[in-house]
Amino acid sequence: MQKREQLYEGKAKKIYRTDDENILWISYKDDATAFNGEKKDRLEGKARLNNEISALIFTKLNEQGLESHFVERLSETDQLVKKVEIVPIEVVVRNLVAGSMAKRLGLEEGVELKQPIVEFYYKDDALGDPLITEDHIALLEAATADEVEQLREMAQKVNKLLIELFNNIGVRLVDFKLEFGRAADGELLLADEISPDTCRLWDSKTNERFDKDLFRRNLGNLQAGYQEILTRLGGPSCTK
Amino acid sequence: MQKREQLYEGKAKKIYRTDDENILWISYKDDATAFNGEKKDRLEGKARLNNEISALIFTKLNEQGLESHFVERLSETDQLVKKVEIVPIEVVVRNLVAGSMAKRLGLEEGVELKQPIVEFYYKDDALGDPLITEDHIALLEAATADEVEQLREMAQKVNKLLIELFNNIGVRLVDFKLEFGRAADGELLLADEISPDTCRLWDSKTNERFDKDLFRRNLGNLQAGYQEILTRLGGPSCTK
Ligand SMILES: Nc1ncnc2c1ncn2[C@@H]1O[C@H](COP(=O)(O)OP(=O)(O)OP(=O)(O)O)[C@@H](O)[C@H]1O
Ligand SMILES: Nc1ncnc2c1ncn2[C@@H]1O[C@H](COP(=O)(O)OP(=O)(O)OP(=O)(O)O)[C@@H](O)[C@H]1O
Ligand SMILES: [Mg+2]
Ligand SMILES: [Mg+2]
Repeated sequence: MQKREQLYEGKAKKIYRTDDENILWISYKDDATAFNGEKKDRLEGKARLNNEISALIFTKLNEQGLESHFVERLSETDQLVKKVEIVPIEVVVRNLVAGSMAKRLGLEEGVELKQPIVEFYYKDDALGDPLITEDHIALLEAATADEVEQLREMAQKVNKLLIELFNNIGVRLVDFKLEFGRAADGELLLADEISPDTCRLWDSKTNERFDKDLFRRNLGNLQAGYQEILTRLGGPSCTK
Repeated sequence: MQKREQLYEGKAKKIYRTDDENILWISYKDDATAFNGEKKDRLEGKARLNNEISALIFTKLNEQGLESHFVERLSETDQLVKKVEIVPIEVVVRNLVAGSMAKRLGLEEGVELKQPIVEFYYKDDALGDPLITEDHIALLEAATADEVEQLREMAQKVNKLLIELFNNIGVRLVDFKLEFGRAADGELLLADEISPDTCRLWDSKTNERFDKDLFRRNLGNLQAGYQEILTRLGGPSCTK
């Protein structure tokens, strides 16, 4: 597979065309950002950690019958994915109260939810990715009512699989963000990444943070936390 | 009916007990507030205008078969209502894009919605009355799923009646906020007020504002705008 011109540079990844028009080349970056880009830093090794973790998780989901855009790990920092038309909705699933939900509703972080909550955020940096309702999704024509139903179901299914996957390695899945896209045939496909950048992951026993809150809240070394997740998932330790 | 001790002083009204434990005495105030109390002013005559308008509208809704907490107009500034346990949800109905929805979704004010949108906000000043989803309502135990369904239906019904009522007097109902409460028998009842404080009302021809945006955005004399609504509804002009 040949890497062609860059299509997009995001905050965490660069996306390139390939010689197959249905396949994209994702290059993870060593950049960390938070609070809609207000806080920024270069954290060496982060590209490798998120690429390896995301590749491992997509592979494990696939083994459980859950398809995604993931095609193949190329190197420590790069992977191939199926090209999709991204649905401009960030689908957030929560098992425990944390982050913006604690703030929005005045609830204590760490409280367990009786049942998982699915939230939709409008993927628009200029608007600060606002929480939206299904009525707003229809108004914005961000997805059809049928797609929204599918997003909910797929998100709940991913949640079940991820809870189990992380539970097996002594980690609590607090919450996470998913993106979905429409494949060439119109089918909705899990896309983007699943990594400690997009999940809140707490040690089951100590509640130690292994996710981007390490960076957001200056709680400790981000790379050490992400490496702990990668190691527990059975992935390689640092090569450098 | 005897007025007894004050139970609550809000930003726009004072609530008193009466000698009937199921009936409350509402005294409207001449105060105007916006942006969660950040902007404040005393506007003489506002109490009378909102009391008269709210009494008139609740009476007209009643004539159309829609019950509310409204019992009786007592004076220019006071009315009797049935005591309810207020559901801590502000139910907003929108027919055109305006205000916080324009900001949240990056849409232009004045765009007509293909169908009315119902939104729920958590009634909590300290949290800034955040937008919430039905999952959040369940989590907060703010209302049962059955009550949420009723809130939606009642809000849509009020909207239909109010659109017609205002259309008849050359006014466009852009959006409005409702509060509901549980009566002694547990039944949900439309409560609080319906006035230019809680509705966006634009002249059908000129788009002139007759609502609290006059105050929020310094667009002109609030009392003149509210009096225009009262007059068009067939209410009395200023007595002073
Ligand atoms: N399979 C895919 N096909 C097309 N685009 C994808 C695919 N997977 C992810 N993307 C998009 O590629 C970009 C990934 O880059 P990155 O995560 O760095 O973006 P970002 O900084 O989060 O920006 P954005 O706000 O656009 O998501 C995102 O816009 C994401 O939606
Ligand atoms: N029938 C009723 N029974 C009991 N309470 C009522 C009834 N109708 C309205 N209320 C409540 O009385 C108060 C009215 O006062 P006001 O509108 O000034 O309050 P506010 O400043 O908006 O404050 P809040 O944030 O509490 O609504 C509100 O809390 C409202 O929910
Ligand atoms: Mg991203
Ligand atoms: Mg009020």
